[in-house]
Amino acid sequence: MDDRIYQHAETLVDWSARIERGDDVVMTVAEGAHDLATATAEVLGERGANLVTLYQSGEIGRAYLTGHDGKFDTDSEHELALYENADSVLILGGEWNTAAMADVPGERQSAYSRSRQAIREARMDTDWVSTVHPTRALAQQAGMSLPAYEDFVYDAVLRDWESLAGEMAQLKSILDDSSEVRIVADGTDLTMSIEGRTAVNSAASVEYDSHNLPSGEVFTAPEATAGHVTFDVPMTIRGQRVRDVRLEFEGGEVVDYSAAMGESVIGEVLDTDDGAKRLGELGVGMNRGIDRPTDSILFDEKMAETVHLALGRAYDSCLPEGESGNDSAVHVDLITNMDDGSRFEVDGEVVQRDGKFRWEDGF
Amino acid sequence: MDDRIYQHAETLVDWSARIERGDDVVMTVAEGAHDLATATAEVLGERGANLVTLYQSGEIGRAYLTGHDGKFDTDSEHELALYENADSVLILGGEWNTAAMADVPGERQSAYSRSRQAIREARMDTDWVSTVHPTRALAQQAGMSLPAYEDFVYDAVLRDWESLAGEMAQLKSILDDSSEVRIVADGTDLTMSIEGRTAVNSAASVEYDSHNLPSGEVFTAPEATAGHVTFDVPMTIRGQRVRDVRLEFEGGEVVDYSAAMGESVIGEVLDTDDGAKRLGELGVGMNRGIDRPTDSILFDEKMAETVHLALGRAYDSCLPEGESGNDSAVHVDLITNMDDGSRFEVDGEVVQRDGKFRWEDGF
Repeated sequence: MDDRIYQHAETLVDWSARIERGDDVVMTVAEGAHDLATATAEVLGERGANLVTLYQSGEIGRAYLTGHDGKFDTDSEHELALYENADSVLILGGEWNTAAMADVPGERQSAYSRSRQAIREARMDTDWVSTVHPTRALAQQAGMSLPAYEDFVYDAVLRDWESLAGEMAQLKSILDDSSEVRIVADGTDLTMSIEGRTAVNSAASVEYDSHNLPSGEVFTAPEATAGHVTFDVPMTIRGQRVRDVRLEFEGGEVVDYSAAMGESVIGEVLDTDDGAKRLGELGVGMNRGIDRPTDSILFDEKMAETVHLALGRAYDSCLPEGESGNDSAVHVDLITNMDDGSRFEVDGEVVQRDGKFRWEDGF
Repeated sequence: MDDRIYQHAETLVDWSARIERGDDVVMTVAEGAHDLATATAEVLGERGANLVTLYQSGEIGRAYLTGHDGKFDTDSEHELALYENADSVLILGGEWNTAAMADVPGERQSAYSRSRQAIREARMDTDWVSTVHPTRALAQQAGMSLPAYEDFVYDAVLRDWESLAGEMAQLKSILDDSSEVRIVADGTDLTMSIEGRTAVNSAASVEYDSHNLPSGEVFTAPEATAGHVTFDVPMTIRGQRVRDVRLEFEGGEVVDYSAAMGESVIGEVLDTDDGAKRLGELGVGMNRGIDRPTDSILFDEKMAETVHLALGRAYDSCLPEGESGNDSAVHVDLITNMDDGSRFEVDGEVVQRDGKFRWEDGF
């Protein structure tokens, strides 16, 4: 077995999930994640954790949802009991076919999702971490060969997380003490307020309230956005390709939009509810192991020299106690490059220029 | 997908497990059982059951047990809660490698098993059913090509179970009303008492207290065995090939034994405890879809024209209320052919001769 798989498992168990002896762990294994699951099981055994292994398959999910009449029971007791009694949940992604559910009607999927709210909350109440094992399907989605995609995934996952967490703490500290962010780049000049908001140092560990491996972003919850922004990182949203989305904001709300591709899906997102027209997240990608977009939000939004903004729901962890922030049924991330000619300003001071932070060589 | 996979799933869900709307079902999927799991998920969806899917892998089990120091927590809460809240458990076997655990020390496996007694009991308290999907590894163990093995499995599984249950009811009725069984075959002349014992009509359905698919045997709990028996169906016991085991009984206990191959493992089994020297089960195979031994006890013991005897533990369902029957840490089945020249007598009357029961054509 590729030694990096074992290192991935150790990073997941020790750095990300902080598993200790006696922890009741649920490990959810996608169809193509068998090898990572085997390595993770060995590490969990070494740490003395107790293991239940679930199987996550788009094909099985599709078969179940297709067979069902759509009148789902609410929060089945056996699954709820499993998560209510779990300390940690490790989600090992890695499908065989990222389009396996493509012919399940969206309404059926939504109804199933709505029937599982307490199960989902019980799972989110654990020390959960989501990661992926490189499969052919994910390599294909990224437009890469499997060996090249494996290199890409391990470059992103096998970081010096302690060191990156330290670097990200500097940006968090700057944002926490400030009132306004301005982003200037090709096709972008946008300002927003972050007054009173708290940034999250998302360092791929439950210790940092960060639940993705890889991670490597600092994010907060902006408001009162004004100006225009162009998102030049290609994406797929709801199965549709989206390119060069341009949004114009006044008084915190989108007042105009266009896109070179996928304009209609952006329109659908904006029409969801009032909150979908406002930003729920400003995130700064800082993972230098991620050097290109791969059409996977888990990786793309953490890419160094990018900024992402999400239309819709804000995260509670960024808000003052008792404040609810922007609310919406959606949270859709859009990403823009911060390379040559770009500036990230906080309260009028340049924090990042041409992709380099002010504490980096070459700033 | 082979249509027989879907028929297998329907037999499992409807005939065997009797799943109804709202049932909380755990489906445990072996590495190679993905296709059967997909078909079963569709049927479970159609019936309106609630599904949690577990992954069962010899490789993951080996990794966990190898990593662990062997001091296992007793009955971890999350797994116990899952089974305590489940109505049915469907176990879909079908490994990639039947020897995947071969280098895990037996003591480690036993310690893990001992730590999970309440979990095991909670699972056995559900309407559980165990079946297998044909994999290359199982075909290889049977000495067959995959297509031939698939035919074999579906011949065994896709029976007219209603009709077979009716036929088996005749033998159950004869055994329930009788005191003594005598088995005469090549190398065998054995008598045993079944006075007061109740036979189980094992018709591959929880309705019949039968938890294997395929099944197709009638079994009871004998005592006071006397005479000699030769088991000419080849088997693997504890990883060792066993051929032509001969046992001699006096007063219910084995007093002498020999084997053409694997004599030492038979000696080990007999030395386990006092109960291991006595019989816990007399079973009569009646599944005419199983036409050859395949070195898998799930199939072999149900093969038509065979009888099997188990050294060790008896099943409670065969015993009068309050009686405990033969007790032992082991239950090891051995099988003998009942073909030409054989007789199965009950209270002095011939019930089966040359492999044919008295209600069959050609008796």
